[in-house]
Amino acid sequence: MNKKYALAVSLFSIMGLAVADEGMWTIDNFPADRVAEKYDVEIDDGWLRSSQLATVRLENGCTGSFASPDGLVLTNNHCIWGCIRNLSSAERNLSDEGFMAASREQELSCPGQQVSVLIDLDDVTGKVTAATRALDDAEANEARKAALTDLETECEEAADGELKCEAVSLYNGGQYFIYKYKRYDDVRLVFAPEVDIAAFGGDPDNFNFPRWCLDMSFLRAYEDGKPASTPNYLRWRQGGPRLSEPVFISGHPGSTDRLLTMTQLKMQRDVVLPLWLLRNSELRGRMLAWQNTSEEAARTVQQRIAGLENAIKVRRNQLKALQNDSMLAMKDKQERELRAAVAADPDLSAAYGDAWTLIEDAVDTHRNFYEDHLFIENAAAFNSELFNYARTIVRGTAERERPNNERIRAYTDAALPQVEQNLSAKRPIDKEYETLSLTFSLEKMREWLGPDSKYVHAILGKESPEGLAARLVSGSQLEDPDFRTALWDGGVDAVKASEDPMIRLALDIDPEARALRQQFENDVEAPLTRGEEMIADARFQIYGSDTYPDATFTLRITYGAVEGWEEKGELVDPFTRTSRLFERTTGQRPFMLPDSWTAAREALEPDTPFNFVATTDITGGNSGSPIVAADGNLVGLAFDGNIHSIAGDYWFDPATNRTVGVDTAIMLEALKTVYGADHLVKELTVVD
Amino acid sequence: MNKKYALAVSLFSIMGLAVADEGMWTIDNFPADRVAEKYDVEIDDGWLRSSQLATVRLENGCTGSFASPDGLVLTNNHCIWGCIRNLSSAERNLSDEGFMAASREQELSCPGQQVSVLIDLDDVTGKVTAATRALDDAEANEARKAALTDLETECEEAADGELKCEAVSLYNGGQYFIYKYKRYDDVRLVFAPEVDIAAFGGDPDNFNFPRWCLDMSFLRAYEDGKPASTPNYLRWRQGGPRLSEPVFISGHPGSTDRLLTMTQLKMQRDVVLPLWLLRNSELRGRMLAWQNTSEEAARTVQQRIAGLENAIKVRRNQLKALQNDSMLAMKDKQERELRAAVAADPDLSAAYGDAWTLIEDAVDTHRNFYEDHLFIENAAAFNSELFNYARTIVRGTAERERPNNERIRAYTDAALPQVEQNLSAKRPIDKEYETLSLTFSLEKMREWLGPDSKYVHAILGKESPEGLAARLVSGSQLEDPDFRTALWDGGVDAVKASEDPMIRLALDIDPEARALRQQFENDVEAPLTRGEEMIADARFQIYGSDTYPDATFTLRITYGAVEGWEEKGELVDPFTRTSRLFERTTGQRPFMLPDSWTAAREALEPDTPFNFVATTDITGGNSGSPIVAADGNLVGLAFDGNIHSIAGDYWFDPATNRTVGVDTAIMLEALKTVYGADHLVKELTVVD
Repeated sequence: MNKKYALAVSLFSIMGLAVADEGMWTIDNFPADRVAEKYDVEIDDGWLRSSQLATVRLENGCTGSFASPDGLVLTNNHCIWGCIRNLSSAERNLSDEGFMAASREQELSCPGQQVSVLIDLDDVTGKVTAATRALDDAEANEARKAALTDLETECEEAADGELKCEAVSLYNGGQYFIYKYKRYDDVRLVFAPEVDIAAFGGDPDNFNFPRWCLDMSFLRAYEDGKPASTPNYLRWRQGGPRLSEPVFISGHPGSTDRLLTMTQLKMQRDVVLPLWLLRNSELRGRMLAWQNTSEEAARTVQQRIAGLENAIKVRRNQLKALQNDSMLAMKDKQERELRAAVAADPDLSAAYGDAWTLIEDAVDTHRNFYEDHLFIENAAAFNSELFNYARTIVRGTAERERPNNERIRAYTDAALPQVEQNLSAKRPIDKEYETLSLTFSLEKMREWLGPDSKYVHAILGKESPEGLAARLVSGSQLEDPDFRTALWDGGVDAVKASEDPMIRLALDIDPEARALRQQFENDVEAPLTRGEEMIADARFQIYGSDTYPDATFTLRITYGAVEGWEEKGELVDPFTRTSRLFERTTGQRPFMLPDSWTAAREALEPDTPFNFVATTDITGGNSGSPIVAADGNLVGLAFDGNIHSIAGDYWFDPATNRTVGVDTAIMLEALKTVYGADHLVKELTVVD
Repeated sequence: MNKKYALAVSLFSIMGLAVADEGMWTIDNFPADRVAEKYDVEIDDGWLRSSQLATVRLENGCTGSFASPDGLVLTNNHCIWGCIRNLSSAERNLSDEGFMAASREQELSCPGQQVSVLIDLDDVTGKVTAATRALDDAEANEARKAALTDLETECEEAADGELKCEAVSLYNGGQYFIYKYKRYDDVRLVFAPEVDIAAFGGDPDNFNFPRWCLDMSFLRAYEDGKPASTPNYLRWRQGGPRLSEPVFISGHPGSTDRLLTMTQLKMQRDVVLPLWLLRNSELRGRMLAWQNTSEEAARTVQQRIAGLENAIKVRRNQLKALQNDSMLAMKDKQERELRAAVAADPDLSAAYGDAWTLIEDAVDTHRNFYEDHLFIENAAAFNSELFNYARTIVRGTAERERPNNERIRAYTDAALPQVEQNLSAKRPIDKEYETLSLTFSLEKMREWLGPDSKYVHAILGKESPEGLAARLVSGSQLEDPDFRTALWDGGVDAVKASEDPMIRLALDIDPEARALRQQFENDVEAPLTRGEEMIADARFQIYGSDTYPDATFTLRITYGAVEGWEEKGELVDPFTRTSRLFERTTGQRPFMLPDSWTAAREALEPDTPFNFVATTDITGGNSGSPIVAADGNLVGLAFDGNIHSIAGDYWFDPATNRTVGVDTAIMLEALKTVYGADHLVKELTVVD
């Protein structure tokens, strides 16, 4: 790797050159030497491999870890709210009541839930680069996708169906990999505490610390109807982590934006985030008011509200981060220095000098049809689970007819099993809520595209958003998995013949939606991808490879230590204790304890550590990640970051960015003392 | 006036130097010569005086004009939604049904409605400057307010109670005036069309053009129980304005921000607007969902929703304007040029050079307690009419005890009559809606200040926002005007003895709220005022006085012509016609016509001009303003701007900024043909 520029640029912090505990490191590039130097602990390949095989990805966007040899998966409570909602009914609210299977026979299947373990990975950068050489941007974009689809198919065929293969772009296209997963698609609910203790403090305390959340749950992976055998699991340390102890988090951070250019950051700040926040703040208001109309309504939206409020808090603080002029100036300086380094060398300049202009033009182009693309192709106009089914069926049946490597990548042969599992999964749909949310999104479409937009005319005609939504939702049969499967199996002809109004809408709008998709791919994605690849290559040339890529919902390891931080001149203690939980209770949600905890108050040890913070670098998708000590033992469960961690989307501030985790000590004590879960305690603490 | 810098700076457009039809001109500084040169029409002092005396200010934030010698006031329908709501009931929805008094006896008194006519104005700049000389910022700030209060009192005493006197700061403190008004506080509803034609197109069409809104209504000012005699009224031109005809708008634009510094604009962009928009988008969602719970709920919030949606559209587009990097760069350039001109002259530099730093520091200080001040002192935590009454009673009774010129200026002797009229006015209060909106605002307080804020602890204690709101609203008697008046008359002792829970809350939080107010006045308002005065003086010195101040809800005249604009390469016709209204109808709100219009379709002349646009420079507060031809005749009624007009808060873009008005032709035709309002037509078209 060419490092001739290293000295000239060594003064500024770029991803991977940071001195602090920054970095969501790929498994093949973990900076063990740096960790050894800073923390005096050795992380060898065996350690990393064990950690990798004990970590699972929840395909709905979280992480978990094996906690016993029998497929027991520890993850957050908030990671399985979808499952909990799907298993609840008007008679039985598992969110409020919690759930514990007294035996394995009582474990409840989570509809559509999948977990995966990363087994292996192949660097295919050379193959992808070869496939796109000498093509123009739009052609290269298509050729790249075709190559990735082919590589996935080859991989799955070579594995004889035993592995799921997924192409991954790292460093914004600087590297391409095929990641190989073992996937479990029979996943059952074992244990979930009541939401009032899992999410104690609710939205007000979300991203806050000090904190008292038992945000844990257990699932179990099954194979062939039996608990999966998972010899690579994490041993439970009963005492939790020590102050200042080095800790490691393996998991699947969803996405970060640390490599974005200034142009792209401003697009986020000025267009993407404000539009998202305005729309979703209104939706939040509609849900909050609607939940008061009936108990059933409250149950239907309870978790959706929590999820939405979380997302709003994230984006609101992302926006705040991007409004921080001094941080933005720092990013600007870094960008100008990189550009100057490129410009100073004729070869680099010739190869990469145009990258920033390319991206600027692509972003300008995107701005001009951002709303059209968002509402019509990205379906922001159709905030409806029934529409999602309809779009999947309409698109999927059509795409299936095409050669595998020419399809939209969501419908390749490698992707179809998951699509089909989703279509056939039985999930309750509340039609009143569906109507509310579809009405909302159609109204927002009309608001943002304008009543005279051709898309608005095509979709609404002379109907009101409310009238159209009511007609579509009440007329559609798509809530029935058999109906969906029949259409899917019937293919294009069955779809075209269908009189289901939601299918008709998805069909009718599809040509225009696809045109917007094509426009986006050719005029935005293609030049952006090339520009980003150029910058990634320039970075490697100038800064070397001792760096980490933006998060991509693939396996990463981050390291750090259990340490507080300074907030407005006060040092924040990194641990909270059980006693304070009871003092903080008001008796009113979200500061209300479930009866089980009130009853157990005297029996609980007041000094037991509850939640704690660490300097590790994580983000959304890491929820449910194991927090592991250098000895390989599980000491905590990541479930959140502090408020400063949200700016981590754009930059890592070692002084303030903290992970928030549940201590293994309180998890074990709660299982024993509050829930009487002796069978789980035994499974967790078995000595092999 | 020192113009020695005029040549050096003549190339850039600053307020008042613009070549286009920019400018909200004060009545004493109208650029008649410029108008004569551009439009070849003569506007003399008599013309201006007649226009002034025919224009009224609606004290709830709008403009109107006398349309007959008998006190008839023409204004917008949307300007009197409060009156319409107050006069409606479950049995009779005047918003949906419209209203027409068949005779003067049937005219309905609008609770609390006041209209005022500007009679005269005095320049008191010298007196105010003398009162604040040699004081530090905080002292000067208090001395200035005391001086303004004294000047108002002197003026009212001199007028023997016949006039209302109000101090006005123009050019951000560059000038001070006492404006003298004749006030009418018996105002009655004469005519209002159905909301479906008044606001045809609703929120989707708001700020759009082409447009079809009959956004008109008539009130009547009464004196001594009889229609007021108003010899200065505008004559109605039956044919409306001609294409390219010069037109003039007199009215009361509420506020603009064209003189803000870059620091202040960024505070708007990064703090004020996002926070407002996020909160109110959520409130919008809550109202939209709640209105579906009953017919009564729908009636209660119908107009509030429209008002809120309007405000959201305004602020969303203000934010968009401030995210326009090139416009902001233009503002930045203007600011740097002014600062350079100040710096280049030792005298100016000594007098004004520190102004921008002063403002920067004040804004930084403000940012640090912006949310506390907003929620607690500015009552964003208490979104409740009952709380507003409580705050007024608690504050007002305490302030009354102090010497007049030491009071908060909302409670000076000059201000008290309006305070008292508001307290005694009978207005219906929907307690369910009160609870909803108070719950919302308490939740937002907790969200933005955090659950550990001392204010949040003081207000909520161990109650939930919902529980507290329900207790306060159900327990308070403040919806009863007699109860309010009794407390008001009882004074501080009665207030302290009151067990009304809303009064208790207002009392309990008052010390902390006042402390925040004092902090704001001393640390933000005082230095800001001095900095702004310095900049205003520097501007006068450098650019001369041929300029106009930011809008302050005081009388202004703007001029322009009936002209379309170019939108994405297409020329927009400045007139719409009746025929297209019927084609645009969908039968669904907000594109649904009332029955009266559907029935009259054949009888209406399809080519009658409906709405039109002009290049005049207006903003919120100008709603209801008369649009007058050079011959002094009324040709239209301003009710909106196009979407580009919203950026007019920060700068005037002559290429795209347009006023939208209702044509006098369609107003007259509708009165005749749709409403059979022959008595009104006769009153409007009487020849004297």
